[in-house]
Amino acid sequence: MILPPHLSIRDGHLFIGEHDTVDLAGRFGTPLYVTDENRIRENYRRLADALSARYPKVQVLYAAKANGNLAILRILAGMGAGADVFSAGELDLALQAGMRPEVLLFNGSSKSPRDLALAVATDVRVSVDSLDELSQLNAAAASAGKTVEIAFRVNPAIEVPTHPKIATGLATSKFGIPAGQVLDAYREALACSNVRPVGIHCHIGSQILEVEPFARETAVLIDLARDLADIGVPLEFIDIGGGLGVPYRRGIDRAPTPEEYADAVMPVFTAGVKELGIEPALWVEPGRSLVGDSTILLTRVNSVKEAHRTFANVDAGFNLLARPAMYDSYHEVVAANRADSPAEREYTIAGPICETGDLLAKDRKLPALSAGDLIAVLDAGAYGFAMSSQYNGRPRCPEALVRDGDVALMRRAETIDDLITTMTTPAWQEE
Amino acid sequence: MILPPHLSIRDGHLFIGEHDTVDLAGRFGTPLYVTDENRIRENYRRLADALSARYPKVQVLYAAKANGNLAILRILAGMGAGADVFSAGELDLALQAGMRPEVLLFNGSSKSPRDLALAVATDVRVSVDSLDELSQLNAAAASAGKTVEIAFRVNPAIEVPTHPKIATGLATSKFGIPAGQVLDAYREALACSNVRPVGIHCHIGSQILEVEPFARETAVLIDLARDLADIGVPLEFIDIGGGLGVPYRRGIDRAPTPEEYADAVMPVFTAGVKELGIEPALWVEPGRSLVGDSTILLTRVNSVKEAHRTFANVDAGFNLLARPAMYDSYHEVVAANRADSPAEREYTIAGPICETGDLLAKDRKLPALSAGDLIAVLDAGAYGFAMSSQYNGRPRCPEALVRDGDVALMRRAETIDDLITTMTTPAWQEE
Repeated sequence: MILPPHLSIRDGHLFIGEHDTVDLAGRFGTPLYVTDENRIRENYRRLADALSARYPKVQVLYAAKANGNLAILRILAGMGAGADVFSAGELDLALQAGMRPEVLLFNGSSKSPRDLALAVATDVRVSVDSLDELSQLNAAAASAGKTVEIAFRVNPAIEVPTHPKIATGLATSKFGIPAGQVLDAYREALACSNVRPVGIHCHIGSQILEVEPFARETAVLIDLARDLADIGVPLEFIDIGGGLGVPYRRGIDRAPTPEEYADAVMPVFTAGVKELGIEPALWVEPGRSLVGDSTILLTRVNSVKEAHRTFANVDAGFNLLARPAMYDSYHEVVAANRADSPAEREYTIAGPICETGDLLAKDRKLPALSAGDLIAVLDAGAYGFAMSSQYNGRPRCPEALVRDGDVALMRRAETIDDLITTMTTPAWQEE
Repeated sequence: MILPPHLSIRDGHLFIGEHDTVDLAGRFGTPLYVTDENRIRENYRRLADALSARYPKVQVLYAAKANGNLAILRILAGMGAGADVFSAGELDLALQAGMRPEVLLFNGSSKSPRDLALAVATDVRVSVDSLDELSQLNAAAASAGKTVEIAFRVNPAIEVPTHPKIATGLATSKFGIPAGQVLDAYREALACSNVRPVGIHCHIGSQILEVEPFARETAVLIDLARDLADIGVPLEFIDIGGGLGVPYRRGIDRAPTPEEYADAVMPVFTAGVKELGIEPALWVEPGRSLVGDSTILLTRVNSVKEAHRTFANVDAGFNLLARPAMYDSYHEVVAANRADSPAEREYTIAGPICETGDLLAKDRKLPALSAGDLIAVLDAGAYGFAMSSQYNGRPRCPEALVRDGDVALMRRAETIDDLITTMTTPAWQEE
């Protein structure tokens, strides 16, 4: 396994940035998410630079769903990122983190009347997913005496090599306006009194490890931009979404670099807009590629069991990291307190949840493990804590943030009181 | 579709017990879980009666993971149930609900040192999953000057017809002591100073719609009980676990009745213990079959979209009900505010989560739907709210409980403040 550059092994211990994971686990307890702020900054800077070097008007919108901790949003806000928000909650957090409304896009295939009213009230742009939503948004804007700037989410009907549950640009996905209906949708938007179409938006999926689908998608959007120019839609932005993957199998998977991504996408984009004589902003919506590798999940071995396999039973399961159970996702694991011991035998890392599928990693060669040892699950920064639950009556774990020599919690540990704080007692059950 | 008896259609509206779901959604908002207390009571009574009629010493231990709301636990505690608890949190809640320690079993394949200490402190019995755990528990009991009564969780290596993620009794599952190691484990327990083996425990899986696997499992346990008698283990209880399913496809699936379950299991059990000359308590651990059908999830249509399919986009997704996305589970859906209108066309009920897999129901024939209509997702009482998350920045919905003419919240709606209440700001991010 090849560790990413912010992780290292020193005197047998796994370090994240300058911090010994064994010390962090001792200080804050386990399970524990730990994020390296500098890694997020590097990831952001490298992507933004690669794109901006090839076109002057680029705006990164962080896909807040990947990791919605305010501390993460603040880091990215400070670097100039906006956000792709998918709910009222994400919109609220992005604004709290200091992101400006003009660099937020309210996405979603199922927005409620309250969502639409909030979008109008906060002056963000809206990615509209259906004609039904268009008319509702127009009415909401009219009743507030405002005009809302929108894009349509376009379904490009592109096949991409990723897990079917997160391939969002398939012809059969729930997202977006089918290609054949897009122009009519814009015509309808042009006829709306309180909606102004200014953008076009697309997203083909997540965890994509090739650049070619992004180039194809961009070509689809340029073609649509040509048609939109013909019907008089002044495009102020073209949003190609996100989707770049993380090389979860370290040393085996290969993820495109930001430069490779830019090299694939930008020639299509810049040639297209030049030919059309327009200069829209290019919006991109990376999530996983910014935060995925920044974070590890530390979990302690509770017991080891010899059965048909050897199980190392740990204190984190799919309550905290759902991806292995939900998508059969692969995450590297490291014996964090004996990281330079020879890998002696195969362990299956099993969580504490009462389901057979609660396995974080299967049949991994690791140093000999026993109760008390510390396991680090790598690349847990995207769709990790974000998808966590309190299943099996388990309070959720804390999240720590490190930066250079500093460390602090960006989320405290939940307690059993946090499990019951929203419960209320029906009157007939009162003593 | 054939509705379960506590659901009915009156004047075009779906009712749960005596309550109009349209009124409930208007009063408490959507999404909304609604549980019928009387249905839980019926389910419990019928199972307990069927078993107790065939053997005098039966104890029902509710599988608290299925639905851990304190109000639900209180109902079952009041009827005499104990609980199968899988974590410190579930143990704490079961005690808070008034369940007695002697009818609680602390289960789990990965118990932490704190879990073991808590088990010792609260005087509950422990289902031990490995020899490693046995020695840790013995040490924890010794240091508290106590003796803990235990069972071993046995892996019966039984194939069952259910989803592989919840088939817990397979030879390849993470649960339990492999059959060939069981006697040695008990011998080791007999040699422990502060542990006393008094039970045997097994669980073959969840959502099983045939009785035959339970009879086979019981036969395996009786065989083991014979061996245990030979080595001098005085069995006070035999715990056959849970696993009875719910007929999610109403009118198509058929779930065994409690009487059929008892008819399959009890002759094997009673003949076995009679032959052995022992009279252990029979423990059973039903979860889904007690609460699954008691609850509906009400969700409102935000928009309707014509694409390659017709989507009814609703306000609840796999953030609130993970089963369809996680296990491809089927739940019936009813147009709750037009429940006697003719089913005119096929709709796919899509949630608001930013994943292609966020579909609650696919291609269901329903009355013509439009924004504002109300959908009821049936049989959402087990592994529904219990597995919920705040994914996509979504506060979780409330849970209502109805009983005869009464209705009350047993959980309030979360707000955006509940999303950030555990977040903390690293010092270097303070203004």
